[in-house]
Amino acid sequence: MSGNERPCCFEFRRRVEFHETDLAGIVHFSNFYRYMETAEHAFLRSLGHSIHEQVGEAEIGWPRVRASCQFRRPVRYDDVLTIRLSIEEIRTRSVRYGFRFFVDPDDPPVAEGEVVTVCVRFGRHGIEPIPIPGPVRTGLEKARDAAGE
Amino acid sequence: MSGNERPCCFEFRRRVEFHETDLAGIVHFSNFYRYMETAEHAFLRSLGHSIHEQVGEAEIGWPRVRASCQFRRPVRYDDVLTIRLSIEEIRTRSVRYGFRFFVDPDDPPVAEGEVVTVCVRFGRHGIEPIPIPGPVRTGLEKARDAAGE
Amino acid sequence: MSGNERPCCFEFRRRVEFHETDLAGIVHFSNFYRYMETAEHAFLRSLGHSIHEQVGEAEIGWPRVRASCQFRRPVRYDDVLTIRLSIEEIRTRSVRYGFRFFVDPDDPPVAEGEVVTVCVRFGRHGIEPIPIPGPVRTGLEKARDAAGE
Amino acid sequence: MSGNERPCCFEFRRRVEFHETDLAGIVHFSNFYRYMETAEHAFLRSLGHSIHEQVGEAEIGWPRVRASCQFRRPVRYDDVLTIRLSIEEIRTRSVRYGFRFFVDPDDPPVAEGEVVTVCVRFGRHGIEPIPIPGPVRTGLEKARDAAGE
Repeated sequence: MSGNERPCCFEFRRRVEFHETDLAGIVHFSNFYRYMETAEHAFLRSLGHSIHEQVGEAEIGWPRVRASCQFRRPVRYDDVLTIRLSIEEIRTRSVRYGFRFFVDPDDPPVAEGEVVTVCVRFGRHGIEPIPIPGPVRTGLEKARDAAGE
Repeated sequence: MSGNERPCCFEFRRRVEFHETDLAGIVHFSNFYRYMETAEHAFLRSLGHSIHEQVGEAEIGWPRVRASCQFRRPVRYDDVLTIRLSIEEIRTRSVRYGFRFFVDPDDPPVAEGEVVTVCVRFGRHGIEPIPIPGPVRTGLEKARDAAGE
Repeated sequence: MSGNERPCCFEFRRRVEFHETDLAGIVHFSNFYRYMETAEHAFLRSLGHSIHEQVGEAEIGWPRVRASCQFRRPVRYDDVLTIRLSIEEIRTRSVRYGFRFFVDPDDPPVAEGEVVTVCVRFGRHGIEPIPIPGPVRTGLEKARDAAGE
Repeated sequence: MSGNERPCCFEFRRRVEFHETDLAGIVHFSNFYRYMETAEHAFLRSLGHSIHEQVGEAEIGWPRVRASCQFRRPVRYDDVLTIRLSIEEIRTRSVRYGFRFFVDPDDPPVAEGEVVTVCVRFGRHGIEPIPIPGPVRTGLEKARDAAGE
């Protein structure tokens, strides 16, 4: 999860809010998973898509199947996090994203994470994985390729 | 919200979790509203009902229309809160609950709150207030009257 | 909490994040209390102050002693909330703020709240209310008066 | 993270609360990281220790340096999660825990996670990793060994 990451294809900023700290005086680690999701949603929005949308007649969504994060330095109230998203892999039904968190973008990342989300249809029979719809896939591929240039 | 409260008709305990504290070393105030809701749900469950259930063919729920809380003393990580719920008022479509929070049940409450929830049907046309279904109303009234005796 | 509010002296925007919704498909009510706090902090920051700062040799903070909110319309994922803060009252040790939430600033508010925060010193003997420090008070009064003109 | 896990040395139950769900109708994934932490804290408490305590004259804590989770099946409001904690590794300054989540303890786990926590001292010079204090280490080793028998 370091050294040869894919290049960043989206950058997102989020100021740490007071309720996200804990009694140790730092951001509670669980919030980093929320920040990753919020950055991913902002990225999809930048492509004209949403995390939860109608595509044709199906209601589709992107639940997480795996998420990990490493915490290198404490982050504090009022810090403004810069979150750099990269697309590590696009598969038939899922996407693997990488995230690097910076308090000062010139310093090493304060945290690094990875999330695998799977494209699903919410239907009468529950939640069912589906191939990523064409327009979404095209947007993801373009963003990945543009970052690599 | 003090002095002549209706008698308690349900008692609920919840241990404060680490992520619920903030950098001031105390429980973040927003969690008290969650504790009130969790206590209310446990109360409804004790009556055989749920906060979100099918009654006949309707999907009903209980969104909040108003919630207030007063914070008298700080509550800390690992404290076990005792939450006493009272039914302040049952109206056609809504219920007003009172809540008193104790760290030591022999001391004055550390916080006191009040919540108004309205019974709604989730349908195609959005969220629509409905009269409280008969079986739920009967359960609420019995609980309130049993507490007053 | 309606009709003759004090004029708005600060406006803050916050996009609803996915994790802030609940299974009813709307923003969980507890998050409105967090939004109010985040707006208040942004307001204090705009005055050059912080919710948790050293003033001279004291560490001061602003815990809430009371917070209420009325919920008029559901708010959904991806909505951008406009939050208008007003200063309802400045007392020796506390401030009472009003908040109005808008999804569309041309429509009536979707929620309205009120928060009383008290200025405290965190010390060896616990949390002790203190008079609002001069520079903070001056900033609050100026903001309130400028809004009223 | 499957197959040959270390044996469970602590079991913890936690009912899913309403505010932990999201608009997809399931528990928001970020809450699993909180459940793991809460289970770990309950485990330390069962050993007579705390996640944040004075040991001699030092204030020690256990921030996370890494946490991952795999989500296999959706978990819903009101489900009662059974969380089985195992000690995967005890090092000089850190512990690696495994967690398996069950809705029905007779079915395969609905989620599996792993957390590395490091023992630190909170001091004037910030947060500094320290060797796990003797009494805590002894308690952890006994619990691990008792589970293996």
